[in-house]
Amino acid sequence: MADINAIAKQFTEYYYHVFDFNPAVLAGQTRDRDNSMLTYEGDQLLGIASIVNKLISLPFQKVQHVVSTLDAQPTPSGLIVMVTGQLVVDDSTTPLQYSQVFHLLADGGSYYVYNDVFRLNYG
Amino acid sequence: MADINAIAKQFTEYYYHVFDFNPAVLAGQTRDRDNSMLTYEGDQLLGIASIVNKLISLPFQKVQHVVSTLDAQPTPSGLIVMVTGQLVVDDSTTPLQYSQVFHLLADGGSYYVYNDVFRLNYG
Repeated sequence: MADINAIAKQFTEYYYHVFDFNPAVLAGQTRDRDNSMLTYEGDQLLGIASIVNKLISLPFQKVQHVVSTLDAQPTPSGLIVMVTGQLVVDDSTTPLQYSQVFHLLADGGSYYVYNDVFRLNYG
Repeated sequence: MADINAIAKQFTEYYYHVFDFNPAVLAGQTRDRDNSMLTYEGDQLLGIASIVNKLISLPFQKVQHVVSTLDAQPTPSGLIVMVTGQLVVDDSTTPLQYSQVFHLLADGGSYYVYNDVFRLNYG
């Protein structure tokens, strides 16, 4: 599964880079994704417009995702990527544990995010 | 999404009940699932026989999964369920945080586990 692991790693690096620096860019990168979903701490968003609105309205000024583990598996229509990691928010010295799963669907030679579920892990 | 949430909840309760009490039962419950996958703490298993072997050989005598959060989303071929929770192992007084994602594929009127990724979350 070397290939999907490479795709998963590349996607994750890209996604968190955009998320941490300028999530509004996601709106321009994705085409007409009316069926794409994000569940963020239990909030359900449908469609790329709602998703980007949610991301840019999150209540922090600065955020950094640090990936701890990354697992990928093929699905009938793409691949699943599961990430666990730490979230450093607004210069806090206490990183928050999080987990996130992406389901990327194949679309010609590329992939786009169809499912995205994010949860903080409270101890 | 009431319906898939109900399916997700019912599946998760069933899965952890079986896992915690007698994982060998999974071998009898699943039909010919040569393509089902489990990634358990980075170990990749393919096919239900390998998966059940892994589950029954995990190094604990007693385990209990306590679900904290449960999120579900539809996919083109089924649904994704993401769980975060706590794992109580062998009467330990320190529960371990974990996250797990399942991708259930529709098969007639029921579902089966196609993708399964499990990770402990270390603080």
